[in-house]
Amino acid sequence: MIDLHLIGIGTGNPDHLTRAAESAMRAADLILLPRKRADTVDLYDLRRALCDEVLTPSTRVVAFDLPVRDADAGYLTGVRTWHAAIADAWTAQIATHLPEGGRLALLVWGDPSLYDSTLRIAARLQAGGMALRVTVVPGITSLQALTAAHAIPLNDLGAPVLITTGRQLATHCWPTDATTVAVMLDGEGAFTTLDPANTQIWWGAYLGMPQQALLSGPLAETGPTILARRAALRAEHGWIMDCYLLRRSTPA
Amino acid sequence: MIDLHLIGIGTGNPDHLTRAAESAMRAADLILLPRKRADTVDLYDLRRALCDEVLTPSTRVVAFDLPVRDADAGYLTGVRTWHAAIADAWTAQIATHLPEGGRLALLVWGDPSLYDSTLRIAARLQAGGMALRVTVVPGITSLQALTAAHAIPLNDLGAPVLITTGRQLATHCWPTDATTVAVMLDGEGAFTTLDPANTQIWWGAYLGMPQQALLSGPLAETGPTILARRAALRAEHGWIMDCYLLRRSTPA
Ligand SMILES: C[S@@+](CC[C@H](N)C(=O)[O-])C[C@H]1O[C@@H](n2cnc3c(N)ncnc32)[C@H](O)[C@@H]1O
Ligand SMILES: C[S@@+](CC[C@H](N)C(=O)[O-])C[C@H]1O[C@@H](n2cnc3c(N)ncnc32)[C@H](O)[C@@H]1O
Repeated sequence: MIDLHLIGIGTGNPDHLTRAAESAMRAADLILLPRKRADTVDLYDLRRALCDEVLTPSTRVVAFDLPVRDADAGYLTGVRTWHAAIADAWTAQIATHLPEGGRLALLVWGDPSLYDSTLRIAARLQAGGMALRVTVVPGITSLQALTAAHAIPLNDLGAPVLITTGRQLATHCWPTDATTVAVMLDGEGAFTTLDPANTQIWWGAYLGMPQQALLSGPLAETGPTILARRAALRAEHGWIMDCYLLRRSTPA
Repeated sequence: MIDLHLIGIGTGNPDHLTRAAESAMRAADLILLPRKRADTVDLYDLRRALCDEVLTPSTRVVAFDLPVRDADAGYLTGVRTWHAAIADAWTAQIATHLPEGGRLALLVWGDPSLYDSTLRIAARLQAGGMALRVTVVPGITSLQALTAAHAIPLNDLGAPVLITTGRQLATHCWPTDATTVAVMLDGEGAFTTLDPANTQIWWGAYLGMPQQALLSGPLAETGPTILARRAALRAEHGWIMDCYLLRRSTPA
């Protein structure tokens, strides 16, 4: 029996670790750290540093190579094939390092519920017949790091909020159900596809990290500034992770 | 100058406290704890217990009576008048206990960004001329406690999620932009107003607390079970706090 703990670790600020996350890390028999072969966003180093800070040498920490996603496949097909390959990689690591079963932990960026595949990969192992019990330890998300850094509420008073991706925003334009939209996974500046009238943007990159960058203002003026800043930061650091909140003052 | 720290404390489980929340609590000159006069949901006791656990006796913790909201006023008017009264109550406490300025902390349920009025009340004090700097410390929200307890993702693969209130859901029915809807602040079982076909519900009450209760399943069968369980729990404990996630298998 594998007792799998998916531990939300926040987005790079060790001070965002919860007590529950720390104890779950310490209680693990094995922590698996994924390493991308050609990594641009090196979250491996950040996870490794967190382990060094939190753990005693008695906890076994093993790095493994994360399969590479096929960028040429269609989006959903590509993602599903990739998840299957990751499930195989986990299975191999478990067979090698926890052959008798035990307590396995994975350190999930932000919160395991939000645009993260770890729970889906665990479900694949269960569907494949592995005796696996899953426990989730929540963590601070990038959206919470964003609203905290700007000291703003997520929602207008009693009003709804749509959380979505850059891909969805660019495809579907401004939603009908909400005047606030939180956007993640946007590599292309999907906000440029919107009519910027009456719209404010709050943007953040490297949230919780030493490189943290923030910009906010009316979308019409601040949008172009963000695009330029984003390009400069990506060139400077070699990678970027960012997200943003858009709010319209009148229903669209 | 008042250096105000709004500290997200999670939803009742001290293990959800982050390192940043603990240090911000310890670094405060004064922590103000709101107490409702006729309290049903006694979050005062929970906040007080957290202070006892985290603080040394050197931190000053002061309870103050929270003004009562006028249930007869219209929703938005009622809320705004109430916020103004709370702002006055803070001002009075600050004048009494931090007349020379200093570091003030408030312990915010869940995360300060999500359906919480504390940031809006701070903005009122600033608008009224108080020299107030606001720092937000993010905390685990009830929605994260919900998805963690059920070990489910918030979103479908790459898909949007609408976060809304019971009041909004009952008024606007199923949204057009999302197949997942997260619902908070629902005293009336707003999900009963929906067509339950192809819809799953994941419900949780007292999340993170010893009384935690969970139910999930197809909305058609599980909806009525939740209503009955909710009524029984409310009768047993005298109060209830719950939230839920709805997911449709086909776009509505
Ligand atoms: C695969 S998702 C994972 C989200 C994560 N589970 C969470 O709770 O935030 C990655 C996206 O999260 C956002 N993100 C993650 N970390 C971030 C950070 N430190 N600063 C800004 N955005 C971040 C970006 O939008 C990025 O494209
Ligand atoms: C005024 S809002 C505050 C939300 C809070 N800021 C957060 O981050 O979760 C209160 C609503 O949050 C939800 N809630 C808060 N604590 C909860 C708990 N422990 N269990 C279930 N729902 C909870 C309920 O829907 C409740 O009506």
